[in-house]
Amino acid sequence: MVDITAEVNSVVKKSDLQSGTCHLYVPHTTAAVTVNESADAFVAEDILEHLRSLVPADAHYKHREGNSDAHIKASLIGPDVTVPIQDGHLALGTWQGVFFCEFDGPRQRQVWVTLIKET
Amino acid sequence: MVDITAEVNSVVKKSDLQSGTCHLYVPHTTAAVTVNESADAFVAEDILEHLRSLVPADAHYKHREGNSDAHIKASLIGPDVTVPIQDGHLALGTWQGVFFCEFDGPRQRQVWVTLIKET
Amino acid sequence: MVDITAEVNSVVKKSDLQSGTCHLYVPHTTAAVTVNESADAFVAEDILEHLRSLVPADAHYKHREGNSDAHIKASLIGPDVTVPIQDGHLALGTWQGVFFCEFDGPRQRQVWVTLIKET
Repeated sequence: MVDITAEVNSVVKKSDLQSGTCHLYVPHTTAAVTVNESADAFVAEDILEHLRSLVPADAHYKHREGNSDAHIKASLIGPDVTVPIQDGHLALGTWQGVFFCEFDGPRQRQVWVTLIKET
Repeated sequence: MVDITAEVNSVVKKSDLQSGTCHLYVPHTTAAVTVNESADAFVAEDILEHLRSLVPADAHYKHREGNSDAHIKASLIGPDVTVPIQDGHLALGTWQGVFFCEFDGPRQRQVWVTLIKET
Repeated sequence: MVDITAEVNSVVKKSDLQSGTCHLYVPHTTAAVTVNESADAFVAEDILEHLRSLVPADAHYKHREGNSDAHIKASLIGPDVTVPIQDGHLALGTWQGVFFCEFDGPRQRQVWVTLIKET
């Protein structure tokens, strides 16, 4: 899990959008995006480690590419998250960061950002 | 899990928005938001109880604050959900309610609402 | 899991919206929507099968309708997903498709679509 809060915030700031939503979308099928605690890196490690126990890499899967666990984790965490924008930046809670979740890497990956103005 | 449908609907109604989306965001890292059946309270109890079995409180975690299970559950359920708005109120299915999911409480919590007009 | 990408894309194309977001919402409490690999149908089978092992149909649940597992899976995968729109169609990754996840069927089901223009 990689904290991408700063990179996303830099996109938001360039846009000049003051209030609305920031939609983050992962165009991959073995990765995901979530929001969780960024203050203690052990939180992200615990999430990844526990996902490994819930979805073992070596269970009996039909998909023959050896990464079925990564596909399953991707749908459990989810391919997108939307974060509010207030005062021109991501409105995150005190302890929150946005995390890209790599389940089948390392690989070069993208996150697509769409900004929408509040009504 | 607390049914917050009425509170969210009151925000939607005050806005005069007729059609669009209502984005609900949890600015905490040990809580989440979801939509599920509101008719039978046992459904929410089953969800919480089963999450306790999938993510035990006393497993071996690295995060030292004793609430790693709550952080993991928060990312499994997710920090946000978007519900359509039609005719000036939340467009929920017949049996659906919006639930705030507390995994590390009781605490005073917030849900942030962003309304967007349909194009 | 049913690949509904073509149906959703046909709604997007009729709208003439060029760039923005497509919000997909499941108004049911024992079904969900996700994005994952559409190239190999075994991926969707692995997801469903693994969810069955994580949330057994015959565990001890309080909800008396025999479908508590389906309610729990619905909140693990989630009732909604938002996909970007670019150039007038869903902007999906190379291997991605949008999947309706039926956990308590077969039944006649709906997915509600809300389109929002990019700011």
